Amino acid sequence: LKVKFGSEIKEFQSIWYDETGIIKAIDQRKLPFLFEIFEAKTIEDICLAIKEMVVRGAPLIGVTAAYGLVLHSNSFQGTTILEFLNYFDKGVDKLSRTRPTAVDLFNTISIMRKTIDRNLTIEENQNRLKEKADAIARDIVFECKKIGEFGNELITPKIKNIMTICNAGALATVDIGTALAPIRQANSENKKIVVYVNETRPRLQGARLTAWELYNENIEHYIHADNAAGYLIKNNMIDLVIVGADRIVLNGDTANKIGTYTLSVLCKEHNIPFYVAAPLSTFDLTSKTGNEINIEERAGSEVREAISIENENDINPKRRIIHHIFSPNINPAFDVTPAENITGIITPKGILRYPYQKTIKKLLNTQ
Amino acid sequence: LKVKFGSEIKEFQSIWYDETGIIKAIDQRKLPFLFEIFEAKTIEDICLAIKEMVVRGAPLIGVTAAYGLVLHSNSFQGTTILEFLNYFDKGVDKLSRTRPTAVDLFNTISIMRKTIDRNLTIEENQNRLKEKADAIARDIVFECKKIGEFGNELITPKIKNIMTICNAGALATVDIGTALAPIRQANSENKKIVVYVNETRPRLQGARLTAWELYNENIEHYIHADNAAGYLIKNNMIDLVIVGADRIVLNGDTANKIGTYTLSVLCKEHNIPFYVAAPLSTFDLTSKTGNEINIEERAGSEVREAISIENENDINPKRRIIHHIFSPNINPAFDVTPAENITGIITPKGILRYPYQKTIKKLLNTQ
Repeated sequence: LKVKFGSEIKEFQSIWYDETGIIKAIDQRKLPFLFEIFEAKTIEDICLAIKEMVVRGAPLIGVTAAYGLVLHSNSFQGTTILEFLNYFDKGVDKLSRTRPTAVDLFNTISIMRKTIDRNLTIEENQNRLKEKADAIARDIVFECKKIGEFGNELITPKIKNIMTICNAGALATVDIGTALAPIRQANSENKKIVVYVNETRPRLQGARLTAWELYNENIEHYIHADNAAGYLIKNNMIDLVIVGADRIVLNGDTANKIGTYTLSVLCKEHNIPFYVAAPLSTFDLTSKTGNEINIEERAGSEVREAISIENENDINPKRRIIHHIFSPNINPAFDVTPAENITGIITPKGILRYPYQKTIKKLLNTQ
Repeated sequence: LKVKFGSEIKEFQSIWYDETGIIKAIDQRKLPFLFEIFEAKTIEDICLAIKEMVVRGAPLIGVTAAYGLVLHSNSFQGTTILEFLNYFDKGVDKLSRTRPTAVDLFNTISIMRKTIDRNLTIEENQNRLKEKADAIARDIVFECKKIGEFGNELITPKIKNIMTICNAGALATVDIGTALAPIRQANSENKKIVVYVNETRPRLQGARLTAWELYNENIEHYIHADNAAGYLIKNNMIDLVIVGADRIVLNGDTANKIGTYTLSVLCKEHNIPFYVAAPLSTFDLTSKTGNEINIEERAGSEVREAISIENENDINPKRRIIHHIFSPNINPAFDVTPAENITGIITPKGILRYPYQKTIKKLLNTQ
């Protein structure tokens, strides 16, 4: 992804393995106000990065977990392969408890686990794990590129105004993105598009991250309160909605950032095409319907803290809170959009159409 | 409305005419962090209070405008009734340019204008205007009480979880509120209710004002991101939605805070009753459908400024912005909910049911 520093433009990936054996990632908690690189030296650092959303976005969570297992394996001090496996699984346990909804985390952990070969030495396995993590990261970029090519076919001359929610861009993957991939591709072909970015409360990934990516790519866009989505869709200002995914189950039901379900209902009401874009790691092969998806409830402070610039600890007394918001919060991080509300799912192997049962199985079997 | 100050509870109205000839109002920009009283001595102060949302909420905007015309009339320095009328109309012009959507502003101005009697002296007219403004304020409280009584009938034993958006409470009127009136009434009868408060981006009137009112009244409630409304409604966690209104036109189409339309679509999708509550001043007798309603577009800074606690001018350098959000914003302040999405309109004279054409005309003719 491109990052403008004044008149200079630099290229980054959202995560990379540094030659010194450290995992580096753009710290997404601080964007767009600060551009800082987070350094992870241990699996604990990686777990913190996932939990605290230094990195977020389902595919990137998967890649981060893979690299976490590389760091963890490399820190193994024992001698036997059984001890190594046991040690590896402790890392798996830690990662599995970070965030529950994005299935990429569990899919990637499973792939990494299967990479270990008991007939090889520990060092050979450590190398294999590093190579596998690199391959997973490379594959995600390749898959995003294909998503961009397939999704771009939807952006016909009649499609100009595209809405998205949260960040399903380079920052949610390793580069290019899922929902933003067709938008980048269309832009590279000089199609005239305008992106409407739901700011995406409570954590504002749309306003902070998606808008930042689009700004860096010089793609015309507008941020709006999530509440304005209905107004925009009702007033014929949106031609197409593309969102990312945190988990797509076998019937096509899709968990994604809270607010996505509402957009799908608005699109249904107004006959606006509603697409989900996702790499293969976001498909959950074990769940039949969205009812089986575990929806993460995050801290109420996420809702509360963005309410005001006032801060109790502010050294400027004028801005100190003198009356707290005592009210409790409800803060589900995701919702589930039923398959029938989804016009199509843009995958690296083509666009699936409702009903999805057969096409998703076929997609995953031929993987 | 009750306000807790530690263990002490005081009673306030959101606006009142002070005996010294000053209009005082709770400064709603600062709630719930600071409880401050705004003082208006001139019509310019009143216009600023409306524009900058020191006061907001359609019925309260109407009452504030009435008191603004009292202040303005009292500042008249001329001698003839014609000069007085001319001077009065300059005040009307100023007020009319403050905010376009809430019809209460224009309805109240019109009532005040008609109060002037050319056959009376200037001083007599000044007294009449003051009496009329007081009557308007009193009537709103009475109407809100009636709305509470009629709306409370909807809160049967099966209705426990009630959702609202923005603030249609005492702070949006003079006391009691519109959408919150049935909730207050139900609570006073010890009905077990829980209120789900859409935080209401961009200005967070739900999280800041509605939650504060409910906290002061000891009514159980939860704040949630507007994005979570779909999740809550889909998961059968909401039994009833009640919202306020900024303008109800003759066919029942209703302008209200941005995001209201989306809630109405979610309610339609899930067969949840969706009610609007409003006093008579919120009905627009001159517009036939919602297409005629002028929707205010407010400054994009409202969307942008809430994005982060970082601030360029912060004296704590750690929190200074080093990368601005360059993206432009779209910030419509209201949307229009079509009459067919509205289960009923709770008025001071009873609950109207769709279709509304005849019942609204009847309501206003018998006013």
